[in-house]
Amino acid sequence: MFFILGATGYLGSYFVKYLRQEGEDVFGLSRTEIDYTDVGSLISILRRKKPKFLINAAGYTGKPNVDACESDKAECLFGNAVFPGRIRTACEEVGIPWGHVSSGCIYSDRKSNGEGWSENDEPNFSFRNGPCSFYSGTKALGEEILKDAKDCYIWRLRIPFNEEKSPRNYLQKLLNYSSLLEAENSISHIDDYINSCLSSFTQECEPGIYNLTNSGSIRTRQVVEWMKEEGVTDKEFNFFENEEDFMAKAAITPRSNCVMDTSKAERNGIALRPVEEAVRDSLRKMREQVLA
Amino acid sequence: MFFILGATGYLGSYFVKYLRQEGEDVFGLSRTEIDYTDVGSLISILRRKKPKFLINAAGYTGKPNVDACESDKAECLFGNAVFPGRIRTACEEVGIPWGHVSSGCIYSDRKSNGEGWSENDEPNFSFRNGPCSFYSGTKALGEEILKDAKDCYIWRLRIPFNEEKSPRNYLQKLLNYSSLLEAENSISHIDDYINSCLSSFTQECEPGIYNLTNSGSIRTRQVVEWMKEEGVTDKEFNFFENEEDFMAKAAITPRSNCVMDTSKAERNGIALRPVEEAVRDSLRKMREQVLA
Repeated sequence: MFFILGATGYLGSYFVKYLRQEGEDVFGLSRTEIDYTDVGSLISILRRKKPKFLINAAGYTGKPNVDACESDKAECLFGNAVFPGRIRTACEEVGIPWGHVSSGCIYSDRKSNGEGWSENDEPNFSFRNGPCSFYSGTKALGEEILKDAKDCYIWRLRIPFNEEKSPRNYLQKLLNYSSLLEAENSISHIDDYINSCLSSFTQECEPGIYNLTNSGSIRTRQVVEWMKEEGVTDKEFNFFENEEDFMAKAAITPRSNCVMDTSKAERNGIALRPVEEAVRDSLRKMREQVLA
Repeated sequence: MFFILGATGYLGSYFVKYLRQEGEDVFGLSRTEIDYTDVGSLISILRRKKPKFLINAAGYTGKPNVDACESDKAECLFGNAVFPGRIRTACEEVGIPWGHVSSGCIYSDRKSNGEGWSENDEPNFSFRNGPCSFYSGTKALGEEILKDAKDCYIWRLRIPFNEEKSPRNYLQKLLNYSSLLEAENSISHIDDYINSCLSSFTQECEPGIYNLTNSGSIRTRQVVEWMKEEGVTDKEFNFFENEEDFMAKAAITPRSNCVMDTSKAERNGIALRPVEEAVRDSLRKMREQVLA
């Protein structure tokens, strides 16, 4: 049985859906049901339920966006750094392998040599290596707290997208925002991401950090171009002049825009599709929904 | 009535003792009695007890020393950063003024102009401005989370000492350690500190950060000299060659050694005694205990 924390959240609900489709037994816990953030409570549920794997899809992301983390720092820090540490304690105590939904948003830009950031690189958009958003700082601390954790997968997601009308879907966000920021990013197709996460466990990859973004990177202007090509919209998109203009007009805290190196996932046979293929696939499905 | 969190801890028990001596009504909560770390629970106790002031003397310091924080990062982060944020939420909700035991250990050395660190200076021994110990990183994040908190005093302590035989007492530590590190530090006499903390509230000082160390600074060699002069010991003290030698032989994480600017406390009439006076006073009492 798979044990999912944050089962009613954005990512968690996709994990639940995917696993149920695969015929797996899923026990989904949401924090409104039980305070699983207490190590003792978590240990006793794990002892009772004896899951073969635990997934931590609970986290504090800020709604509607990362700016909200700046005004609820304590809970952001709790959800993204303290709580993963408590799960580690509980899972190591009971002897349960697990995976943690982490984020590539602890990096900015590319490495100075032009390459994407690999799993071995120190975060450069974190408290220890700023500037950073408070959100990114807490996600980097979360990874620090999980360093050398036993039987723990750290699955780095970035900017999730698919074809659905959720306000959390990157492609939907692009359609909703009045102005866009031109930036280069690695991004993660949700189904591809979930599939890779679970494959890391089922294919017995070595526990540790994995960058799970679609291979390659996108630029915002390129994506809106694809949107038009795929017939999703004929909207004229506005762009901020630059990052300063974006920060001045639309943001409280800086965003991470970065490119990830996905070669470790490729070497381990759990790579996500090339990004253009995944984006166009989602855009075609969005188009079908509009026509339907 | 004064409401004290962490009432059975090292500092907390002195707060309780001092307030009771002053004839104040004290409600001391220890975490073993009730999980006051939950905002909802804390709010309801505060509504029921209606204290005139809350003191947070709970924190994660690491036992026997700060190295222990490196191996329990999640709880260190929780106790020193998340929990103060939750107290803030509860106290602001119920409308209760409060004080937080913070630390000067978020600084290293002196300012580049030779002055001590004032309340307006950004920490330079923190996650955002490293290197730092994990402990110091969490204390600095705690202050960040309390920034602009309503009716909140942030009382910065450093290296507490008095005449008692506690292993937490700096003067006792000097006697117990096999080798010492020569360093310059501001330090806090516990009674002086507690007295200044409570005065900040009773004298209606403006809420905010206060450096509450005895004025001036000490060097380790000077203190052991005073120990001999006051007849506390005739022990020959060994010193590490330098900080590198100390780190290699006796420590896991770097220590904060720093000098604080105490002029804000002086301007507000809540200053602690000059450091030599306070140290010699404690040493004389230690000597009396030996003779008794």
